[in-house]
Amino acid sequence: MQKNTVLANIKEFLIGKPFPTSMDVHERLDKVRALAVFASDPISSNAYATEAIMSVLIVLGSQALHLTLPLGLAVAGLVLMVIFSYIQTILHYPDGGGAYTVAKDNLGKFPSLIAAAALLTDYILTVSVSVSAGVRAVTSAFPEVFPYRIELAIFAIFFITWVNLRGVRESGAIFAVPTYAFAGGVLVTIAAGLVRNAGLFGAAPLPVLEQHLPATNPAEGFLFIWVLLRAFAGGCTALTGIEAISNGVQAFKPPEAKNAAITMVVMGSMAMSLFVGITYLSTHMSLIPNEAESVLSQMTRAIVGRNFLYYWVQIFTATILFLAANTAYQDFPRLSFFLARDNFMPRWMQTRGDRLVFSYGIFVLALISSVIVIIFQADEIAMLPLYALGVMLSFSISQSGMFRLMGRIAHLKPGQTLRTLVTEIHYERGVRWKQAMNAVGATVTFLVFIVLAVTKFHDGAWIVILIIPLLILMFHSINQHYHRVSVALSTKGLEPKDLSAIANVVIVPVADVHRGSLRAITYARRFAKDVRVICVTTSPEVKERLLRRWKRFSKITRRVKLITIDYDYRDVLTPVVEYIEQVNNIEFPDQITTVVIPAFIPTYTIGRFLHNQTARRLRDQLRNYKDIVIIDVPIHIDSKI
Amino acid sequence: MQKNTVLANIKEFLIGKPFPTSMDVHERLDKVRALAVFASDPISSNAYATEAIMSVLIVLGSQALHLTLPLGLAVAGLVLMVIFSYIQTILHYPDGGGAYTVAKDNLGKFPSLIAAAALLTDYILTVSVSVSAGVRAVTSAFPEVFPYRIELAIFAIFFITWVNLRGVRESGAIFAVPTYAFAGGVLVTIAAGLVRNAGLFGAAPLPVLEQHLPATNPAEGFLFIWVLLRAFAGGCTALTGIEAISNGVQAFKPPEAKNAAITMVVMGSMAMSLFVGITYLSTHMSLIPNEAESVLSQMTRAIVGRNFLYYWVQIFTATILFLAANTAYQDFPRLSFFLARDNFMPRWMQTRGDRLVFSYGIFVLALISSVIVIIFQADEIAMLPLYALGVMLSFSISQSGMFRLMGRIAHLKPGQTLRTLVTEIHYERGVRWKQAMNAVGATVTFLVFIVLAVTKFHDGAWIVILIIPLLILMFHSINQHYHRVSVALSTKGLEPKDLSAIANVVIVPVADVHRGSLRAITYARRFAKDVRVICVTTSPEVKERLLRRWKRFSKITRRVKLITIDYDYRDVLTPVVEYIEQVNNIEFPDQITTVVIPAFIPTYTIGRFLHNQTARRLRDQLRNYKDIVIIDVPIHIDSKI
Repeated sequence: MQKNTVLANIKEFLIGKPFPTSMDVHERLDKVRALAVFASDPISSNAYATEAIMSVLIVLGSQALHLTLPLGLAVAGLVLMVIFSYIQTILHYPDGGGAYTVAKDNLGKFPSLIAAAALLTDYILTVSVSVSAGVRAVTSAFPEVFPYRIELAIFAIFFITWVNLRGVRESGAIFAVPTYAFAGGVLVTIAAGLVRNAGLFGAAPLPVLEQHLPATNPAEGFLFIWVLLRAFAGGCTALTGIEAISNGVQAFKPPEAKNAAITMVVMGSMAMSLFVGITYLSTHMSLIPNEAESVLSQMTRAIVGRNFLYYWVQIFTATILFLAANTAYQDFPRLSFFLARDNFMPRWMQTRGDRLVFSYGIFVLALISSVIVIIFQADEIAMLPLYALGVMLSFSISQSGMFRLMGRIAHLKPGQTLRTLVTEIHYERGVRWKQAMNAVGATVTFLVFIVLAVTKFHDGAWIVILIIPLLILMFHSINQHYHRVSVALSTKGLEPKDLSAIANVVIVPVADVHRGSLRAITYARRFAKDVRVICVTTSPEVKERLLRRWKRFSKITRRVKLITIDYDYRDVLTPVVEYIEQVNNIEFPDQITTVVIPAFIPTYTIGRFLHNQTARRLRDQLRNYKDIVIIDVPIHIDSKI
Repeated sequence: MQKNTVLANIKEFLIGKPFPTSMDVHERLDKVRALAVFASDPISSNAYATEAIMSVLIVLGSQALHLTLPLGLAVAGLVLMVIFSYIQTILHYPDGGGAYTVAKDNLGKFPSLIAAAALLTDYILTVSVSVSAGVRAVTSAFPEVFPYRIELAIFAIFFITWVNLRGVRESGAIFAVPTYAFAGGVLVTIAAGLVRNAGLFGAAPLPVLEQHLPATNPAEGFLFIWVLLRAFAGGCTALTGIEAISNGVQAFKPPEAKNAAITMVVMGSMAMSLFVGITYLSTHMSLIPNEAESVLSQMTRAIVGRNFLYYWVQIFTATILFLAANTAYQDFPRLSFFLARDNFMPRWMQTRGDRLVFSYGIFVLALISSVIVIIFQADEIAMLPLYALGVMLSFSISQSGMFRLMGRIAHLKPGQTLRTLVTEIHYERGVRWKQAMNAVGATVTFLVFIVLAVTKFHDGAWIVILIIPLLILMFHSINQHYHRVSVALSTKGLEPKDLSAIANVVIVPVADVHRGSLRAITYARRFAKDVRVICVTTSPEVKERLLRRWKRFSKITRRVKLITIDYDYRDVLTPVVEYIEQVNNIEFPDQITTVVIPAFIPTYTIGRFLHNQTARRLRDQLRNYKDIVIIDVPIHIDSKI
């Protein structure tokens, strides 16, 4: 027991004192922390989303960069639509669950599992990609640590995992600083840019870059549209992480749904202000994406110069890219919880740890994303083609589900209420209008999914296209397993006589007559009249010694049958198992046979290596039999090893 | 059971049909096979022993090479003395055991453990060194495989391991060819050399090399003696493996001791003919050791030219260097067997496998020597300083033991017989003379040990000097463990009342009322009047559902006490273990408390990952308590995963 206490102390030191289950509601997030926890991913997108549009448009020549603003506005429009849809989701599904629950409730099992598989894949990639991007920022500043990038990334995953295991409220507090610092820094920069642009307060006008790129023949027809679509799809990376809150409604302080919806609105406004601001200013200043310096850095430098604010934005850009991983640490375990509750994931993923977080989900996420970091050598550029694909698919499914739900609400009469599978819907107004928005959202996000899948197929998107059905297959197998378990355990119509009868026989396999086996025999005699001690003898000397000892303890062994088996091979378990099998199948068919196994237990685990584990191996073999009950009668060996 | 049959079939295919224990004597070795099995190491020494003397002498200038012959003869004299001593050992200890048994019987526990530790270390190194040397022969011929030398060495170890697992007779048959081919080829070469030297049959006289080395000032005084000692110690590598037969007497067909002694004589004569022949001819022809070509190769080429016989000798030199490993495969498992029988090694090392060889010893040897090959990157030159040291130490101890034994025999009167610890000694003649030989042998081999340890200390000999005491510590700890086990299991003065009484109580921890737990409760009711079902409830809903189901099965649960524990944390095992602890320690102190655990058993192992293993974890925790008996009542889940 000493050992366990030490472990418990170490655990408590690392992740803190266990919280009682009833404290759950105190561990919930207020809106300020919630924004930090759930918004790091969508807000971090602003570090690259505008640039993603520009770097596609540039193939049409620098003139085409003017299209960045309209495309950016289109992305912003889509984001607003998706946010609107998710606010509806939060309000209609206050228990949380996002795309998975919406699809399950409105479209059926299969679409819900597609959405779940797509999201899980994406959450894992979010961690791998954002941690690798954060490490790249570090190795750019300190090139000498480049050879250790994988170790650094794994260490970062460890760190984020550790903070998350300490509880959602604590991780919210720790990770709030960089999120607000980044958003604040960029907002100030944008404001300064707009002030200079408007010539307010006598500010110097914004510089406009002279364009030096050679003119290209503008693409025409389908090719032109294809490039626009790709640029638009690139900008849609701004959407990643937006759905986080819808899964995590239950992480909010009550009233959960209301607080979640408000946080969603604030998060959306903040992310969109940043995105539109950056896009407008970069287009206006005719910035050109280049490999050496990011568009955000160019913009900040052009507006505020290389001063304190510039470095502030740079440092917190790097930090928030790291932290985008933290959003996935909220999403993955929660979605796994919903899937586990519905028997599509191992049930233990529902269990909450000492600090009321879904520890197993956190571990699984950390483990798989670490493996991916190792496989891809912490190179986030190589992982990007796999990324964002899953999110778009899940958006499309989620909005199709909301479209369906709105359709069902539209059939309600005022005052009428309907119970769906998982929620309750009431009559409401303006449903057709909301439904139209969902239709547009679902179509556009599906289109983006197709564009991403097609353009990046060869670069790795195929991996995701392959993994999603494999995950669905896994969900299905797990579900089947639990179904069989529940059938086997079912008490429906169970009568006492249906339970197997217990044969009045106990078999005690022994290697020798010693204190341990005598203890087992004494125990066995308590239990049944017909006690049979079985011993395999491999030589006449062994047999002779056994019989001599047996006679010596006639008080203990009286009325006990001793069966010796002379055996000319060394696998002594085989005849024992065969004998037990025969008693169980032939002498007492359909009854429970009891086997008492005397087991040595050395104080320290290392001592086990000194015994040939016959007892353990016998137990493992007998466990395969349906009607054999195994009784372990321990004898403890008090030793230093 | 299907699974086990498949495994058994694969095993049978790989290592052959199991032999019954009584077939042991048929699996023994005749003298021809025994020579092949035990002689590969000592005979292979001829590939380098002469050269080892020469390459030390060369530091004194080429003139000094003439000293090779006298030094070689001194080594041969020592070999004869050691062989003589081991023949005495075989005749006096017909059950085998070599240095370890002799030391145990005559010098006491500590010297015997030193000898055992020294030998085990050396056997492992024999495998690593000889396999690496064999691989070097291969990579010299095919330099393109050099990057795979470690893989090749591991593969070679695998191969030798596999052949040895198939049984000693079979490995004898397989490995006889190269041993006899090498010995035969070299003997024919030596004979040809002698014929040419004597000018018989009109043969051309042997070429004598013109010496072109610059003359060096001959060393004087202590330095000269030191170089001679080092050269002598180098030549003593010819002694490695000589002791093999003394361990393996029981591997011979009866009459074991006589056959072993005859084989020892043949092996000694053969090895010494080769050694003296090679040494004489190389000295006579004034061969000079050089890195590019071995002395043996130079000699063969000079005598027979580059013809068939030359290539024969070259090929089988490479092969026998590989096979020297095989001798260690005989020695290591047997010595481990003797140590295990005396409780200094894990007892399971006594167990013989399907083909009556000590499979565990073979596995352990293969594993450790593979690790060493990997650590030393299959570079036998780097391992050589560690090698031969242990053998010399064990020779010295063994001969000291024989010295003591002869002294004891000298005190016997004609016809008198005395039982020592492990054998029986009779009066014999000429004992003082034998004793003198042992004294010289013991002294000289100890001197060689010191010379090797001092000259090679910095190159790695210190590792062996360090490992030997660590091994002795391990032997001691293992011995202590078994001693405590035997005390714990001892039935000395045991009375039935000394065995703990069995409390009339059964505790059944359950998670829910289902078919599995009802089965366990039914079983528990058979066993005791006082049945207590304990369930930890983590929420009021769970508790309410439990009580409802409990009432439904009142027929099964009547007179059974239901204890529910409301618990606000997630580690549900803690209150269960605490309750059981309290019953065991306070309610029924010094009595055996019985715990019935209902356990799910999925058909396939992978299904276990879908359950949180509460039953297994509870069992693991309860096993730490002295007076708790655990009953596993299984319920099998029939599922695909």
